[in-house]
Amino acid sequence: MSNSKTMGSWVASANIPNSDFPIENLPYGTFSLKNDSSGTKRIGVAIGDQVLDLSLVAKLPLLRSDVKSSLEVIAKGELNAFMSLPTSAHQAFRTFLIELLKVGSSHQSNVQACLISQQDVNMHLPCTIRDYTDFYASIYHATTVGKMFRADNPLLPNYKWVPIGYHGRASSIVASGTSVKRPVGQTKGPDNEAPFFQACRRLDYELEMGIFIGQGNTLGQPIPIAKANDHFFGMCILNDWSARDIQAWEYQPLGPFLAKNFASSISPWIVTQEALNPFKKSWQRNSEDPQPLPYLDDKSNKESGAYNIKLETLLQTAKMKAEGVAPTSLMTANFSEAAYWTVRQLITHHTSNGCNLNAGDLLGTGTLSGPKAEEAGSLLELSQGGKAPITLPNGEQRAFLEDGDTLILRAYCEAPGAVRIGFGECSGTILPATI
Amino acid sequence: MSNSKTMGSWVASANIPNSDFPIENLPYGTFSLKNDSSGTKRIGVAIGDQVLDLSLVAKLPLLRSDVKSSLEVIAKGELNAFMSLPTSAHQAFRTFLIELLKVGSSHQSNVQACLISQQDVNMHLPCTIRDYTDFYASIYHATTVGKMFRADNPLLPNYKWVPIGYHGRASSIVASGTSVKRPVGQTKGPDNEAPFFQACRRLDYELEMGIFIGQGNTLGQPIPIAKANDHFFGMCILNDWSARDIQAWEYQPLGPFLAKNFASSISPWIVTQEALNPFKKSWQRNSEDPQPLPYLDDKSNKESGAYNIKLETLLQTAKMKAEGVAPTSLMTANFSEAAYWTVRQLITHHTSNGCNLNAGDLLGTGTLSGPKAEEAGSLLELSQGGKAPITLPNGEQRAFLEDGDTLILRAYCEAPGAVRIGFGECSGTILPATI
Repeated sequence: MSNSKTMGSWVASANIPNSDFPIENLPYGTFSLKNDSSGTKRIGVAIGDQVLDLSLVAKLPLLRSDVKSSLEVIAKGELNAFMSLPTSAHQAFRTFLIELLKVGSSHQSNVQACLISQQDVNMHLPCTIRDYTDFYASIYHATTVGKMFRADNPLLPNYKWVPIGYHGRASSIVASGTSVKRPVGQTKGPDNEAPFFQACRRLDYELEMGIFIGQGNTLGQPIPIAKANDHFFGMCILNDWSARDIQAWEYQPLGPFLAKNFASSISPWIVTQEALNPFKKSWQRNSEDPQPLPYLDDKSNKESGAYNIKLETLLQTAKMKAEGVAPTSLMTANFSEAAYWTVRQLITHHTSNGCNLNAGDLLGTGTLSGPKAEEAGSLLELSQGGKAPITLPNGEQRAFLEDGDTLILRAYCEAPGAVRIGFGECSGTILPATI
Repeated sequence: MSNSKTMGSWVASANIPNSDFPIENLPYGTFSLKNDSSGTKRIGVAIGDQVLDLSLVAKLPLLRSDVKSSLEVIAKGELNAFMSLPTSAHQAFRTFLIELLKVGSSHQSNVQACLISQQDVNMHLPCTIRDYTDFYASIYHATTVGKMFRADNPLLPNYKWVPIGYHGRASSIVASGTSVKRPVGQTKGPDNEAPFFQACRRLDYELEMGIFIGQGNTLGQPIPIAKANDHFFGMCILNDWSARDIQAWEYQPLGPFLAKNFASSISPWIVTQEALNPFKKSWQRNSEDPQPLPYLDDKSNKESGAYNIKLETLLQTAKMKAEGVAPTSLMTANFSEAAYWTVRQLITHHTSNGCNLNAGDLLGTGTLSGPKAEEAGSLLELSQGGKAPITLPNGEQRAFLEDGDTLILRAYCEAPGAVRIGFGECSGTILPATI
């Protein structure tokens, strides 16, 4: 917990210590009202336990000229258009939001009517995700998983040079809280002559962070690393659900496919680059690691792109739910320790061949496992490939996820002198397969 | 060339033998008028050397009630909404189009005014492609390329069981005629200690067909193979441009990424399932190959999903252009021989884990190489990995593509008793890298 003093909001719940959403955060999301049967989607900002409904703010007679166009865009209910604006517009809008919500704001009486309790809304995907890319940025994850396949040569020769990534499926990204049906698919054990088609028996989660793109780039125009922040909108938590048995059989030679694309869950609030700024951490290669090639060498900005984000995975089994037992922590880790590549490096590498990114595109970091074995971001790692099931406090064991399990990912930022901000959570419950 | 007699259109150019667009075809595309500076996009149907402008047809006083809602959807200029309708609506609309365009149509005088010369339009992507998946459906391609990496074990054990596929990049799909800038990227030779960042030296094309999804499926609801046609809208030609040197260095363990996502080109007209029906071919596993697992076994419909599509690749170098020499053929092949999996099997496999497809999603077949070496769908194969450059009729040689090369893919369908229909072409010219 941070001892830093929040600048304070007149929204009292935002000032509670360890609130995910103090006035220093102000993440964007898309919601609908639980009591609105039309399900109309609106854009909001989380503040304490409230949502600031920007479609209502847009109607207030307090528009500053520098945010008028942003508010018009936002009032249409499509966050992508706002994300595609230059970073300067995002910064100006943040300043405006702080002015509305800070202690002593002259707008309090007007803005009060634009607040809705988070309990009264359903959260949706924050924006339209056109393309989703998943990286493999944790060297500890890559090493541990590599060891399961190649004991003598766990880390492939390209790992420390190329940010390894692949394209994921955008259509099956769902918002936190959406249940996930156990997939069925082909798998084959080493002793089987032919594959089986059956419900997944090695269902896993992957703890990741998601990076949202702001302003896009034109096809054929790479983003130099010094400009990467101009295209970085913000971050969320990402669970890249994985069917390990399907993956093992299908992934060669072109990578994971059906093992991953049955669902990916994200937390509904996008924490902006501006909110993350106080949590930048310098990145330094270990002396035994190669320096990045010049196009990935962030010389001018050693403190940008790596963030101090604390990560946690929690599990609540069906039995725990039935007995009223709270979710139990499976691991904690820190993004800045787990990731070998920074946000800026991932954006720049992705576009280095001219590939175009669009506002709202999502880049996953890949499973974030820290340097210690107990900091692993998947059950595959925690249970040593299923051979060493973990024992939960109530005596239950897990090698992989079982039906009825609810998996919860949490993340928050802490740094000396800064007010703690959080990402909320990314949860999902496993439903039985249909076969 | 087919000797079958076309039913005939009053659009004279549609009746020319070997026209790609007789009245039996009627593919959909999105165009703008060259002389319209606003660039407004409209949906049209190719007929002979003309485009039938459906935004104009929608205004005619001849609407049949069974196509009225389709026309309203089409008039908005977004093909995806029409694609998402049930197959019965596509069939009804095709019947309506034939009624408008056939010899003796009572609508000729009205419809005449809805025709625009193809020379006067710019073609765009036919629809919004939200998700793009690329398969690996040619066993000959997989074997030849596999041999380059694993001489003793070219085909991986999963190949004959699982339709191998991976997600591609949707944002960088461009319409035929768009130039393609040579990408830059990381590569490393076996003798280099560290990788280089340089312009691609092994730039290649991949001859593929693209499969467009019509009506989508709900997340978690697989499409059984008997229903796959209900979700199959039509096909186009696809060039999956590939940077082989970047690919070789980056692709392990998660598959190709920057080697592919700098551009993929498609032909602009979607040839519909209904137009393809006369060209169905039965599929039969060779006796030495395993029968598909039950979910992929198309028992009830052995003649659906494999189509008799003739494929050709042509090259025109900068020198040939300067000297007025026509493009030269590099190879021909047939889709039904090259593909180990059918359209229906690819759709069903993709959704077998519950993954949701949306109208307008594109599935690439993967490089279509026929059984003979000269039927290979890429330069990588034709030049034996670059070791045996091919010699063009004018004496020039090519191991891989050079700047100024124009690569053209063509495809058409022929079958006894059926009128030949074509896909038009998919072309692209290589521009020099920027580095």
